[in-house]
Amino acid sequence: MQLHKMWQDYPNLVPELEMTIQLMENSVKLKNKSVEKAILDMIHSGGKLLRPAYQLLFFQFGPNQDVKKATSLAAAIEMLHTATLIHDDVVDRAELRRNLPTINAQFDNTTAVYAGDYLLISCFKLLADYTQTLNSLRINSRNIEKILDGELGQMNNRYRLDGTIDEYLENISGKTAELFALSCGIGAMESGCSEKFSKKCGEIGLNIGLAFQIIDDLLDYTQSSEKIGKPVLEDVRQGIYSLPLLYALQENKAQLSPYLLKKEQMTTADAQAVWQIVQQSKGIEKAKKLASDYTNKALKAIEKLPDTPKQTKTHLYNLTASILQRQN
Amino acid sequence: MQLHKMWQDYPNLVPELEMTIQLMENSVKLKNKSVEKAILDMIHSGGKLLRPAYQLLFFQFGPNQDVKKATSLAAAIEMLHTATLIHDDVVDRAELRRNLPTINAQFDNTTAVYAGDYLLISCFKLLADYTQTLNSLRINSRNIEKILDGELGQMNNRYRLDGTIDEYLENISGKTAELFALSCGIGAMESGCSEKFSKKCGEIGLNIGLAFQIIDDLLDYTQSSEKIGKPVLEDVRQGIYSLPLLYALQENKAQLSPYLLKKEQMTTADAQAVWQIVQQSKGIEKAKKLASDYTNKALKAIEKLPDTPKQTKTHLYNLTASILQRQN
Repeated sequence: MQLHKMWQDYPNLVPELEMTIQLMENSVKLKNKSVEKAILDMIHSGGKLLRPAYQLLFFQFGPNQDVKKATSLAAAIEMLHTATLIHDDVVDRAELRRNLPTINAQFDNTTAVYAGDYLLISCFKLLADYTQTLNSLRINSRNIEKILDGELGQMNNRYRLDGTIDEYLENISGKTAELFALSCGIGAMESGCSEKFSKKCGEIGLNIGLAFQIIDDLLDYTQSSEKIGKPVLEDVRQGIYSLPLLYALQENKAQLSPYLLKKEQMTTADAQAVWQIVQQSKGIEKAKKLASDYTNKALKAIEKLPDTPKQTKTHLYNLTASILQRQN
Repeated sequence: MQLHKMWQDYPNLVPELEMTIQLMENSVKLKNKSVEKAILDMIHSGGKLLRPAYQLLFFQFGPNQDVKKATSLAAAIEMLHTATLIHDDVVDRAELRRNLPTINAQFDNTTAVYAGDYLLISCFKLLADYTQTLNSLRINSRNIEKILDGELGQMNNRYRLDGTIDEYLENISGKTAELFALSCGIGAMESGCSEKFSKKCGEIGLNIGLAFQIIDDLLDYTQSSEKIGKPVLEDVRQGIYSLPLLYALQENKAQLSPYLLKKEQMTTADAQAVWQIVQQSKGIEKAKKLASDYTNKALKAIEKLPDTPKQTKTHLYNLTASILQRQN
């Protein structure tokens, strides 16, 4: 198992991330050995492990430094993330993820739906095994519920030409940012930090997650124009309008509507036209600005965190700055 | 909300079953109101509520008689069951359930996958809110994990002409019986019964669940021959061979193989032929015998349970006898 090369810059985290992977492996014990292998392959396929990394870093702030506990909770978070990826692949009929065939492609939707369910449950099993108190488990399960509510919320806004920026932010909160918030918040709380401090850590996570998802959505529009067709086309056809397009709609709705109203009948040429209009309306510029606002909010809050013997603050700052400066 | 008419014979249970439904309703709070409505419609569509009923009955054995707690745990169990039904419908591409359009048919697979996930998580939230101790939550989550393992196990045995009765029983344990076991076991344990006694209650639930699923599988073969085609055909085409067919395969493999090896190309006439062979090989008789063995085991164990002021034993006996004597 090779960790993503980005972790070479954080050698202190490497042993804990490796333990996290090990714990995920140990948690997946199925009678159906071929499905077990497919899940393990997915675990090994080199996801960035950002959420467990944040959880592990925020765990360094509390008095209770139990590595087994820290890594078990990190494994639970990554399993939750993996479960949602498996279900996303069913829903998107995706055939490849990280250059491996998806579980729905290798087996069928049935297997992928149940495999995702299994990981969701395993996540709770790990949480129940290692959280401090029933109360903190309650908070965690409430937050996980919010994440699913967010996924379903997104379905509601499809094909709406008058979707607002606030609605977009609410949706990406649920879809992405809440899981970052949960990772940071659980990390602090379960290491014995106060509820108030843990809440602040959760807010840092939320800002990181918001910036992360905006940048992810931006990448669909900022790649070279040959590459641009596919990702924009897919989402826009499905009626999922992300931030650059929403900003453009505020300025140029009349120009965009004829293309968007084609829905699933949109062609690659239509997508190129949409992309041009988004460029002209400064949708990309404005989205970049908002991402950098959230990034700066997170970085400023990180600077104010207390010092630790492991120089957690510096690591958090560097990690956050580097992932939020991906090609944007 | 009208409860299934079977509960007229158990008037004491009615208020608690109604509270259970109410609690499920209160748990489903989504931003996406149309999905919320679809989930609520499903909750109201008149499922039998057998699993919550068993949970509520076994809860009557312990010293801790907290109705709010009993009904919350019952709601958690029914939500878990509803989540698996929603995902089963995605996987089976089912269009109707209990005479209502399924969530995948009303919306799409995406919505149904996430709606099922949401209910899975809500189930844990309710469990975390109302279980006594972290330890009992751990036991519960381990058992729920087993249920998913069972669903995935079934996929493994598809199209196998040499599947054994033991493998079949192991699969239906996971798919159905473990949830009955969990309902009975949680009921006893969370009302403050000893671990030993609760384990015994779980075993009663397991036997009830095994008999219940065998009878369900039998119904596909015991209905009048005009009706027989469809359900048998569907499962057999998908490579899911249930108990009557497995018994028949032990006797008449050579006769059955040519039909079964057609897999998804099987016709209605082929299914009729398979059904004839299953009849002749006494597959149905033998399966009935095994179902009644499990039923008797459960009923005998129920007879030995202690008395309660609410005459729980009599209710448990009557309920179990009546649901396990459905047309078999």
